[in-house]
Amino acid sequence: MRNIKLIIQYDGTNYHGWQIQSRCVTAQGEVLKAVRKMVGDNSLKLVGASRTDSGVHAIGQVGNFQIPETNTIDCLAFHHGLNSLTPDDIVISAVQEVSPEFHARFDARGKTYCYQLYNAENLSIYHRRFSWHIRRRLDLNAMRQASTHLRGCHDFTSFQAASCGAETSIRTVFALHIQEREPLVRIFIRANAYLYRMVRNIVGTLVDVGFGKREPDDVRRILEGKNRTLAGMTAPAHGLFLLKVHY
Amino acid sequence: MRNIKLIIQYDGTNYHGWQIQSRCVTAQGEVLKAVRKMVGDNSLKLVGASRTDSGVHAIGQVGNFQIPETNTIDCLAFHHGLNSLTPDDIVISAVQEVSPEFHARFDARGKTYCYQLYNAENLSIYHRRFSWHIRRRLDLNAMRQASTHLRGCHDFTSFQAASCGAETSIRTVFALHIQEREPLVRIFIRANAYLYRMVRNIVGTLVDVGFGKREPDDVRRILEGKNRTLAGMTAPAHGLFLLKVHY
Repeated sequence: MRNIKLIIQYDGTNYHGWQIQSRCVTAQGEVLKAVRKMVGDNSLKLVGASRTDSGVHAIGQVGNFQIPETNTIDCLAFHHGLNSLTPDDIVISAVQEVSPEFHARFDARGKTYCYQLYNAENLSIYHRRFSWHIRRRLDLNAMRQASTHLRGCHDFTSFQAASCGAETSIRTVFALHIQEREPLVRIFIRANAYLYRMVRNIVGTLVDVGFGKREPDDVRRILEGKNRTLAGMTAPAHGLFLLKVHY
Repeated sequence: MRNIKLIIQYDGTNYHGWQIQSRCVTAQGEVLKAVRKMVGDNSLKLVGASRTDSGVHAIGQVGNFQIPETNTIDCLAFHHGLNSLTPDDIVISAVQEVSPEFHARFDARGKTYCYQLYNAENLSIYHRRFSWHIRRRLDLNAMRQASTHLRGCHDFTSFQAASCGAETSIRTVFALHIQEREPLVRIFIRANAYLYRMVRNIVGTLVDVGFGKREPDDVRRILEGKNRTLAGMTAPAHGLFLLKVHY
């Protein structure tokens, strides 16, 4: 079998997340429909690296699908064809032929997310779909200090949504940094894996620190407490981007 | 009478332009509805500086309206109130009390527009609503050379839409420059006034030059020819922004 890898961007505003669900419009559903149409096989499966939530965006979602050796559609044809078949808010940014063993989800060694805040009195019409508007001036130094406690290997129970069914709550955050491009503030986080809503719960807590409602050292105590009620609110979905899947 | 000036941003994607029309959703219509609701006067008029076309965006549209001296709503209350009453894709970014003589349209001495191109193989989901996607690599030096012919006072007949009913086609372009922020290319143009679709016709012609389909000096000949059929295509509306109105 041939194995085709896709890099997929989507504006998550109008999607019920990545993963296919009956009666809901999802990014995976739209890409799958386009692939099946090109390949002419209605039982074809599309693997995705990350099940992004409803409203979350992707710059670097990764997918793969298998087709018979007899299929001669090349990568360039898939690239152009899929972009013409998917809606405008989904963009296939790369198509690559990979080894038959490659699996977009199981082979992922980590993922980078970016959460974008728009820190100004007035929201911008340009960024509103892609950022959480925060009027009050954030103390980025305090947020940066708080984020040092989150780097490394920890039990992230306090940052996991109640509905999370993961076997273990231990995750490794390889990198967490905050970039300022006034009035945009971007929180980049790279971890081996994530608990349900972990990034958005971390961001909500860091924003509390930025407001001065919590001290940077509180974040250490929140981690140690292993209790979701200790951490801050869940940041809204529309500020979050799946930036890159690492293999 | 009190005279209130508004600076208005809007994402033009879902609007039939600025100006009120029956049976069409327009930016002016939405702002007017909000102002009338706050003021409690259904005959109130809202002046706008520029009648942007369907699909065109604004960062710095200017409006003004008059209310009786007895009305005590202050600017801050208008600012917050109007933002809560208008849809999310319209943002009031400033409210200011101005002299009774100020008129948003008649007092404008010029306007700056920005046209944004996204020059890359793949469109970006972030910028797609706000830029014209151009795959082929543009020759910006040639475009810059071409734009020198457009600066200054000229008869812009060749760049005016056929349906334009302006009395004279002579306009003064004070500034026209091209900025590169890869993969974004921004064309800034500041003029005393504009003919119908003038910016979009100029951009379409400059893009032809960027493709090498026309020489930079052709632009001088197009101007001199005073004939719309000589210039290039009309660039699509969604790359255009009304940036600033000058008083």
